[in-house]
Order: sequence, then structure tokens, then C-alpha cells
Amino acid sequence: FEATAYAEFSGIIDHLWLMIAAFLVFLMQAGFAMLETGTVRQKNAKNIMIKNVMDLVVGAFVWWGFGFPFAYGGGDYSGGPANGFIGAQGFFFINGYDSCEGGHPSECLYPIAPSIDSFAGWLFQWAFAATATTIVSGAVAERCSFIGYLVYATFITGFIYPVVVHWIWSPYGWLTAFRDPSIASGAWVSPGVVDFAGSSVVHMVGGCTALVAAAILGPRIGRFDANGNMKAFAPHNAAFVGLGTLILWFGWYGFNPGSTLALSGGFVLLAEKVAVGTTLAASGGGFAAILMCFIKYRHLDLPPLCNGILAGLVAVCSGVAVSEPWACFVIGLIGGLFEFWFAIAIQKMKIDDPLDAAAVHFGGGFIGMLCGGLFGSRINTTAAYSEDQPCGAFFGCGGSQFAVNLLAAVMVMIWSMGMGTIVFGAMRLAGILRISPEEESMGLDVSHHGGAAYDDGKNHDSSGFEK
Amino acid sequence: FEATAYAEFSGIIDHLWLMIAAFLVFLMQAGFAMLETGTVRQKNAKNIMIKNVMDLVVGAFVWWGFGFPFAYGGGDYSGGPANGFIGAQGFFFINGYDSCEGGHPSECLYPIAPSIDSFAGWLFQWAFAATATTIVSGAVAERCSFIGYLVYATFITGFIYPVVVHWIWSPYGWLTAFRDPSIASGAWVSPGVVDFAGSSVVHMVGGCTALVAAAILGPRIGRFDANGNMKAFAPHNAAFVGLGTLILWFGWYGFNPGSTLALSGGFVLLAEKVAVGTTLAASGGGFAAILMCFIKYRHLDLPPLCNGILAGLVAVCSGVAVSEPWACFVIGLIGGLFEFWFAIAIQKMKIDDPLDAAAVHFGGGFIGMLCGGLFGSRINTTAAYSEDQPCGAFFGCGGSQFAVNLLAAVMVMIWSMGMGTIVFGAMRLAGILRISPEEESMGLDVSHHGGAAYDDGKNHDSSGFEK
Amino acid sequence: FEATAYAEFSGIIDHLWLMIAAFLVFLMQAGFAMLETGTVRQKNAKNIMIKNVMDLVVGAFVWWGFGFPFAYGGGDYSGGPANGFIGAQGFFFINGYDSCEGGHPSECLYPIAPSIDSFAGWLFQWAFAATATTIVSGAVAERCSFIGYLVYATFITGFIYPVVVHWIWSPYGWLTAFRDPSIASGAWVSPGVVDFAGSSVVHMVGGCTALVAAAILGPRIGRFDANGNMKAFAPHNAAFVGLGTLILWFGWYGFNPGSTLALSGGFVLLAEKVAVGTTLAASGGGFAAILMCFIKYRHLDLPPLCNGILAGLVAVCSGVAVSEPWACFVIGLIGGLFEFWFAIAIQKMKIDDPLDAAAVHFGGGFIGMLCGGLFGSRINTTAAYSEDQPCGAFFGCGGSQFAVNLLAAVMVMIWSMGMGTIVFGAMRLAGILRISPEEESMGLDVSHHGGAAYDDGKNHDSSGFEK
Repeated sequence: FEATAYAEFSGIIDHLWLMIAAFLVFLMQAGFAMLETGTVRQKNAKNIMIKNVMDLVVGAFVWWGFGFPFAYGGGDYSGGPANGFIGAQGFFFINGYDSCEGGHPSECLYPIAPSIDSFAGWLFQWAFAATATTIVSGAVAERCSFIGYLVYATFITGFIYPVVVHWIWSPYGWLTAFRDPSIASGAWVSPGVVDFAGSSVVHMVGGCTALVAAAILGPRIGRFDANGNMKAFAPHNAAFVGLGTLILWFGWYGFNPGSTLALSGGFVLLAEKVAVGTTLAASGGGFAAILMCFIKYRHLDLPPLCNGILAGLVAVCSGVAVSEPWACFVIGLIGGLFEFWFAIAIQKMKIDDPLDAAAVHFGGGFIGMLCGGLFGSRINTTAAYSEDQPCGAFFGCGGSQFAVNLLAAVMVMIWSMGMGTIVFGAMRLAGILRISPEEESMGLDVSHHGGAAYDDGKNHDSSGFEK
Repeated sequence: FEATAYAEFSGIIDHLWLMIAAFLVFLMQAGFAMLETGTVRQKNAKNIMIKNVMDLVVGAFVWWGFGFPFAYGGGDYSGGPANGFIGAQGFFFINGYDSCEGGHPSECLYPIAPSIDSFAGWLFQWAFAATATTIVSGAVAERCSFIGYLVYATFITGFIYPVVVHWIWSPYGWLTAFRDPSIASGAWVSPGVVDFAGSSVVHMVGGCTALVAAAILGPRIGRFDANGNMKAFAPHNAAFVGLGTLILWFGWYGFNPGSTLALSGGFVLLAEKVAVGTTLAASGGGFAAILMCFIKYRHLDLPPLCNGILAGLVAVCSGVAVSEPWACFVIGLIGGLFEFWFAIAIQKMKIDDPLDAAAVHFGGGFIGMLCGGLFGSRINTTAAYSEDQPCGAFFGCGGSQFAVNLLAAVMVMIWSMGMGTIVFGAMRLAGILRISPEEESMGLDVSHHGGAAYDDGKNHDSSGFEK
Repeated sequence: FEATAYAEFSGIIDHLWLMIAAFLVFLMQAGFAMLETGTVRQKNAKNIMIKNVMDLVVGAFVWWGFGFPFAYGGGDYSGGPANGFIGAQGFFFINGYDSCEGGHPSECLYPIAPSIDSFAGWLFQWAFAATATTIVSGAVAERCSFIGYLVYATFITGFIYPVVVHWIWSPYGWLTAFRDPSIASGAWVSPGVVDFAGSSVVHMVGGCTALVAAAILGPRIGRFDANGNMKAFAPHNAAFVGLGTLILWFGWYGFNPGSTLALSGGFVLLAEKVAVGTTLAASGGGFAAILMCFIKYRHLDLPPLCNGILAGLVAVCSGVAVSEPWACFVIGLIGGLFEFWFAIAIQKMKIDDPLDAAAVHFGGGFIGMLCGGLFGSRINTTAAYSEDQPCGAFFGCGGSQFAVNLLAAVMVMIWSMGMGTIVFGAMRLAGILRISPEEESMGLDVSHHGGAAYDDGKNHDSSGFEK
């Protein structure tokens, strides 16, 4: 009885935790929606909202059909052993339940292990996948065609992102720190990457793809003048920007602490330490960016503050589990600092990223990957990973973790930018990527979505009839 | 010790789950508030927000006093046995705690059974009741009087909705699948209805009442011209519409998975399967509606997309626990499809439902009830209900479940529409249901609520003084 | 094994509960942000949003460095025993983990006891601290300088608030009901205060400081005319006001039920009773205020409704655990009633509090403290506190609890108003507290934050270029 009850309660609690975390990460989509809607110009507000909602609609279908099987599936199409590059099992939940073989019927019905192959795991990972895709929608805002959106959303959620998940988070991947030799085959890098909650897996994939997408798509009309000077396009609703950021921060308490995937076996203490580190990183990132904003522009503006907070949160994803809280604050600080100047550098390159999505997610994520190899202390790394995982270079374990993390960051960069170039480049060559200049001037809401996002009623006469 | 500890932890986890789910369903009220506020015209934005907030204020009082006792109370006023039509015990929490008799004092203080008669159960059910009432506020928006609102909100939360809950979800009801013969008496239908999370109980009650309310109230001035052609009244804030939909989707993760009412005893696996089915149904509904919108109007608009998602979520409530995830996707697809055309049919009947609330909740709910009798597989039905509950007609169990679900849908329709006709018809006859044409032209915010919802400061001079 | 497993699961569940509650209370910051942003004039919308976001950024750093150690730390700087006035241990998480001494290394890594000295406890308490600070930002809105904001936010989060926490909630405080004689020293009041979730600790500290801050800062230009008549400054966005209130109500389900700090040992039943009491108090407060509004102004406006709900929620914080649900409804009713007239009284005193923050949090909190000594029933008080804690004066336990609660309320008032006078008075004397009249007329967004909060695109020509 005892062992059974112990296993039962551990299972319930771990599944519950994964569900709660999944719900919180889901809500981040509302945060992105408000942040992006608030930041674009009013004439494209409805368009960006539609895209953010569609990210979930399209994403759920694609993640169900292809994304999750590519990410966490073992085996390959021909029934051979799992490989380190991509999974191939469980398409549309078909034949995806290993635990079913020989077990009790109820185990055939529901996958059991909570971490990755349960329904709760699918849900949690789906919310992550939606995040990676949404990041790009910010960078291509106000000028990307809807067909272009559908194509890239499908590719990112269904292929570009899942492959990186397979590399770094599945038990089969060639870069994973969670390799299970009993089921994995092929060469792999040891030690594996420390990317606890996805500085590279989620944010760099999204941010790198966003950067090439924005570059290939070209700037919005009027963004750069004849002399190459950038014109500021002010957010059309600062309240939405602030609300979106606060919802995102809230959702991050699912994103990072939930990445323990369990509470039993002592992980509850890790989860709450991660929650504290996440908080301090957001604080550090906010401080850095608002200070930089004041130094450079002599005023305190909301978008830099929000992007600094987000960059701090992005940066800490990698090392939050292996670092002391003070180190998380420092990581956030560096992330916010780097993001601020990286955003300006991207603008100098004449790349128009309306949300500074590349700076936040690529910039913050890259810094985070480096920090994940620098700030891990021995005791924290043992608790979060194992005694075999090296701690950070600043804490006496040498540079091996830093080297692996750098390798992973570079590989993710190459993969995401390469695949992004193929997908967006092909669409550009096919002439289906960008709306016409007339449509862009008019705004997407009127040209594609049946009318403006807002109606103040001034086109109605006093009796309520439309003029 | 062991059995005690087992019971204790099961209890804690089940109560905790119910609280979490209740909180999530509560937040759906914020989702409805934003969806409805964004959809109405600007001049009535404050009015609809006040009604959504009041739904909770009034609803808590009424649910405490009458609604919950009618829904889940056993016995009757005279102390006789429970009947299948309506409960009558525990008004204002007085004498409502069966578990108190002969037990330990602490059991008198707090009801124990988490599923329905605990405080957590009350809270969870209250949030459901508020949902049913809120649905109607969308259909009567922009022209219903405040006294009319107070009357119908009280009747729906306090009587129309609780009676249906008693029929279908209480252990006493004549249609319930959870009948407890040791405490229930009278005739009942066997097998009971499969309406896991309320396609009929919540959504059809709200949607059917909404339809008769909108019909009795009559269309908004200017909605239909002399030739009977409908004029589009565009949502005044599309960002609110999108935000509201995303919050509703988020809250649905309490609404559907929380309807397991427990996590122990294997229900955690059911809860997460339900969460996945809910996700895929939303996806299916969104796909169906946006496609229909494009086919019919040649553009992609936000309100149809949002209503399609919501219709998918509504439709899947009934059968989500007994269906495979792929079936949930199909159910959502059918729900979104049906809702799109049902909304147009309602408009053709010259009924003005500003939110398309009837199409989403009545239409989606009705389709959902049918699907709940068609798509249940044997293994899932056994896991969610019991071996005695028939599976769906498509899965080899014959048509009995379909017949019962159809019967329940028709009975709920008759009850809700009948009661709605009485309540709204009486108020119309009494002349208290609708505001005057002058007030309607002016907008409710200015005429009833002390001023417009928005103030852009243009009526203030530069020093901040009002002109 | 058994005892170990029992302790392990209790620990997991209690820590999990604290995390969930912390996340919910965190989200209240988004609620405050929307409520405050919606209520101020449009020209200061971005400013107030920045302050609300900065409350978390600054608050996290200060709470980490000083606030939490002052609040819950034992000992003093010189290593002496703990005192009842202020803690002095664990600055920046350094040497703050008592459980570390002699224990297992993993206990040195993560503090263990979930209630106050764990990371989850820190997070939960941090979210509370942010609330206290945010309350003040409403009262000084539209005219306070940014340096003034930074100074007072640091003082409240880092000193004024933590000292009161130490008095009333720490095991060391001179007013606490949770005194642990084995570690505490010095004189104390017995019985301790009943302030379960912070009517005094959080809300009176915020509300009292807010009142003196608004008084010292002076009214906004144009608020009172030459004859002393107040001009109404309408909220610029009623939808934000409603959304903010609903999010706050949602977050309150972490604030009050989470204040059990545990679910094990029967506390889950207390937590859900608290959730129900919280609901009914909000209902009572809303009813009272909307009724008063109708009686006084003959219309039903949103801000009074929202403030009434909030005042009910504030008032019930103190006694919610020791009172029956019906008593919570009554407490909310009284709170909403008192708040309505207190707000008018403050206006009559020519104090300009744009959010009526003092009326809601000081007024509601003060009433709540009195009710906490009046409405506690014996059985509820025993379940929530102990058999030694007196029940309320209305329930046969005499006036001792009322006397202690009144004493605490007065002491918190003296402390908060005194400290607030020093901090705000010093800044006023130094001439750094208030922006110039020109900046105020222009609005803070344009004068300090790089431009207006909203941009409707009318300054752009049709091709998207700015004019």
C-alpha cells in the first residue's frame, strides 16, 4: 500500500503542477496579444490581435499533428531507434503511448509519466510552442500577409521549434542534459546543455527567426527616411503595453518554475527558488533598461522598461535553476542592458522590428545561455540537474558548461536563422510574403479584416443610425 | 494511520483542485466583461461593464440565498424526501450541512465532501451560475433597463439555472448520471445525461434565455432598416474582444478540467485529457468560423474567429470527458460551423443579439449535447462515468445515450425558453424592460451612469480645468 | 517511512499553495495598474502605468534587500535576540536560513518551513508588500514627481510596511497572535491581534500613508475651485476600471485564502471558507456602494461600485477566518457603506485622492479591524487561531479582542501617518515632491515619459509617414 500511495500522490501532485504551469503559460498569449496590439499603430491593431489568437488555433492543430511528435517522439518513421535530431512518433496522438504496451488498460488510455509524454506535458509544451511562434508575429507586424503568417506559424510550431526541443529537452537529443541511454542512440555532446526553461529553445528560436523575418520582409513604409534615419512609430496604446507585460510576467511563473515538471522528490523547493530568481531577474532587467533609457533619452518611457523586464526574464530562463537568487538579479541586469543596446544596433542595421522582439528574445536569450554556463553554483546544479552536471565557470567548475552552452546557442542560431531564411526567403521570392504598399498605408484592419479596430461612434448619427 | 492519511491527502488535493478551478472560472467573468464591452457601441461601454460586475455582486447573494439550495439541496421545505425537480435545503447556508449530524464538531463547521456540498464546491458552482447569467447580458445589451437586468439576473441565477443543475448534476435529479439511490426518490431517466461541463446546463440555459430575451426586447434602433436589412454595428474596441476571448479560453481550463471535481482516484489523468480536448475543440471551432467568414465575406474578421472558438469550447463541454482528443477537435469544428450559420439565421429572423450569445451558447450547446451522445468511446466513458453509462452511437453502444442527451437538450430548451418568456414577457407587459428611444440614442452611459465611458481630455483646457 | 511521507506531502502541498497564492496576489498588480490607469486623466495614463510596473521592479529589489529581513527576520544587527519592533536578519538572503544550522546541506540551500521563511513565503509576502506601496501611487497620481515616487516606494516597501508586518504577523512581534515564546523576547500584548489577511497590516498602512501623502502633496490643479467646490475628474477609461476591479477580486482569492499559509492539517477547509467569505464581502460592499450612489446621485456609476467591492474585500481581510460567511457579507456591507461616505468626507477636507485610495484602504481597513474583534465566532476562531484566542464581542467573548484590534488599528495609523508625514514632508520641504504646474497641465506623459499614452494615428499621413 505505502509505495503505491506514495507513487499515486507524487503522480497527482506532479500532474497538477504541470497543468497549473500550462495554464499560466497559456495566459502569456494574452500578454503577448496586449503587448503587441498596444505597440503597433492603431490601423493594424485588429490584425495583430487576430494573429495572436490564431497562434493558438493553428498552434494547437500543428502541435497535435506534428510538433509534439517531432519534439518528444522516439523512434523514426520506419520503426528504427530514436535519433538525436528529430522525433517521429505519436502524430495526432496515434501510437504515441509507450506505457501502453503490456500495461493496464487505463495506462493505454492516458499516458502516465507526467514530465513529457502525458497530456499535461503536451499542454505545457504546446503553450511553450505558441510562445516561440508569437515572438515572430511582433517582428513582422504591420506588413506581413496573412498567407505568409499561416505558412511561417505552421513551420515554426511544426518543425523549426520542435527540432530544437528534441535536441535539448528530449531524452534522445544530441545536446540534452536529460539523455536516457536506454532509449537514445547516436552521438551526443556531454555534458548536456543547461537551458532550464528555454533561453535558447524557446526565445532564441523565436528571436533569431524574428530577426531574419524582419530583415527579409523589409521595413515598414516610412520607418527609415531617405537618409536612413529612423522615425519613431509610437505605440498606439501604452496601457495595453503595460498590461501585456504584467500578464507576461505573471505567466512566467508557470514558464520557469513549471519547468521543474514536478514537485515531488524535493522539486517543490527548486520550483519556488526558481520563482524567486525569476522575480529578481525581471527586477534587474527593468532597472537596467529604465536607467539606460534615462541616460540616452533623458526621459523614462514605458516600452524600454517593459522590454528590459522581458529581457531579464528571457535571460534567466537558462540558468535560473542552477543559480543563486543574487545571480539571477545580475543575469537579469545584464540581459536588460544588452537588450537595450542590441535593439538600437538592429535599428542601425535598418532592420525594422516593431516590437524589438529580436532584441528581447534573441539578445536576452543569447546572454542567458552564456550566463547559464557561468553562474551555476555546485549545490544548486546538483539539486536541479545532478552531481555530474558541471557548475558555472565563475564557481570553480571550469569552462566546460560555458563551452557547451555557447555551442548550443550558436547551433540554435544557425538552425533558426537558416530555416527562417529558407521559409521567409521562399515566400518573398514567391511574392506572397508582404502586403501591397496601398494596403499597408490603409492599414491591415481596413484592407483585410473588415474594418477598423476601434469605432468611437462618430460615424453614427445621434439616433444610432450610421450616417 | 495509512487510511487516514490517504483520505486526508485525497481530500486536500480534491478541495485544492476545486478552488483552483473556481478561481479560473471566476476570471471568465473578466473575459465576458471585456468581450461584451469591446463588442457594444462606445456609448454603452460603461453600462455593459457595470452589468458584468453586478453579475457577480448580485449572483453571490442570490446563489448563497437560493440558487445553490435549489440546485444541490436535498429534502424539501416540509422536511420530506428529496425530489428530482428542485432542491430545498441550505438557504443562506442554514441547516445545509448533512455531514454535521452526529459527526465531530469540526465537520459541523465545514462541509466535508468536496464535490458539491463543500464551500469550495459552492464557489465553483457559483462561478458557473454567474456564467449562465452573463450570457444573457450580451443578448440584451444596449437597450435593456437596469431594473430589467436586476430582475432577470435574480431569476436566472436563483431559479431558472439551479433547477436545471438539480435535474442533471445533483444526485437527486431526474436526468442525472450521478443519481444516488440512497438519498434520491421519484422517477428518473436511465441512463442519465452525459453533460460533463454544462453544454446544456450552463450554455443552453444561458443561450436559450438569451434568445427569447432578445426577441421579446426587440432590436436596437437602427439595427434593421425599413426593408428589413441588417446594419452592421461594429465592435467599438477589437482589442477588448480579443483579450476577452483569450481570458475566457484561459478560464475554460477551470470550467472543463475542473468539472472532474477531484484529482484523486485517477481523475487527474481525466482532468488533463479534458484540458487537451478543450484545447483542440477551441482550435476546431476557430478554424471552422474563420474559414466560413472568409468564404462568405472574403475577409478574416476577429468577432467570427472569437465566436467560433467560444462555440467550439461550448460544444465540447458535454462530451469532452468521454471523447478522444481527435473527437473533441471534430466536435469543436462542428460547433464553430453551426454557430456561424445559426448566428446568421437569428439575424434573418430579425432578432438582434449584439454578442451572438444565443448562437454561441444555445447553438454550440445544442450541437454539443448531440455530440455527447455520439462520440463517447467505451474506455473513456468507463473512466469518466462508469461501465454502465452507454458510449456514443458512433462507437457501437447504440443510440440510447444520444436519445437521452437529445431529450435533455429539448427539456432544457423548453424550460429555459418558457421561463425566459414568462420573465421577460411579464416585464415587457409591465413596461419596465426597455429604456426609452431617447435614452437609447443618447447611450446608456450618459443617460443612466453619470457620463461617458471614455474621456480623452479634449473637454479640458490646457491647464487641466474643464471647459 | 510513514511519518516521512506524511511530512513530505504536507510540505509539498503547503509550499504549492503558497506559490499559487503568491502568483494570484502578484496579478493584483495588473489589477491595480488597470484600475489606476483607467481612473486618471488620459494625459497621465502612461505615467501611472510606469509607476505600477516600477512598484514590482523596485519592490522586488527592496524587499529582497531590506523589507523581508525587517519584517520576518529574527535577531538584531549585533547578533542579540529578536525584538518585537523590527527584524534584522537575512538581508539580501544572506545568513537568513535558520534551518541551515546543523541540518542537511539541502536545508541550507533551500529554507524549509513554508509559512514565512521559505522562498515561497518570500514571494507571497513580496506580493503583499507591492500592494501596500501601490495603494499610495493612486493617491498621489497625476502630480507626484518620479524622484518622489522612487523615494516613497523605497521607504514603504523597505521600512514602513515591514515594521508593521513584524509587529503583527511575525512570531516576534509585540502585537502578534502567532508569538513563539521560544524565539521571541520583550513585552507583548496578549491576546494578539486578529488581522488574518491584512486589513491593518497591508491596507491601513497603504491607505494611511496615502492620505497624508495626498494632503501634503496638495490637490491637482483645478480640482477645487476658488469657492472650494470640487470638480469631478472623470476616469478616462471605464473599461480599464472594471477590468482592474475584476482582476483585483480574482487576485484576492490568493490574498485571503492564501493567508492560511498552508492546506495541510485541516487548513484547506479554512481556506475555502475564507474564499466564500471573501466572495460575500465583495458582494456586500458592492451592494452598499451602488445603493449609496443611487441615493445620493440618482445614477449608477462604475467607480463607486468598484470601490465598494474593494472596500468590502479590504474590510473582510481582518476577520474573514474567524467569521461565518453571513458575517463576512455584513462586514463587506459596512465596509462599502463607510468607504462611500469617507471618500466624500476626505473630499470635503479638500484632500485630493484621485483613486479614493485612502477611503477604500484606510476606511475599509479600519472598519475591518473593528469587525475582526466583533464578529469572530468561537468555533471559527478556534479553527483558525486557537482556543486561547478570544472570539468577537458579538459572540460572547467580551471586548478583549475588540480592544486589541482597536489598539492595533490606532498604532498602525499613528505609525503610518507619522512616517508618511516625515517622508512626504521632507520631500516637500526639499522641493522635490511635486512636478511644476506647467508639467502638470501638459500631463506627465508628454512632459516626462516621451509622449502621450495613446496615438490614434491622426498625426500620420495616409502613407504612414508622420506629418
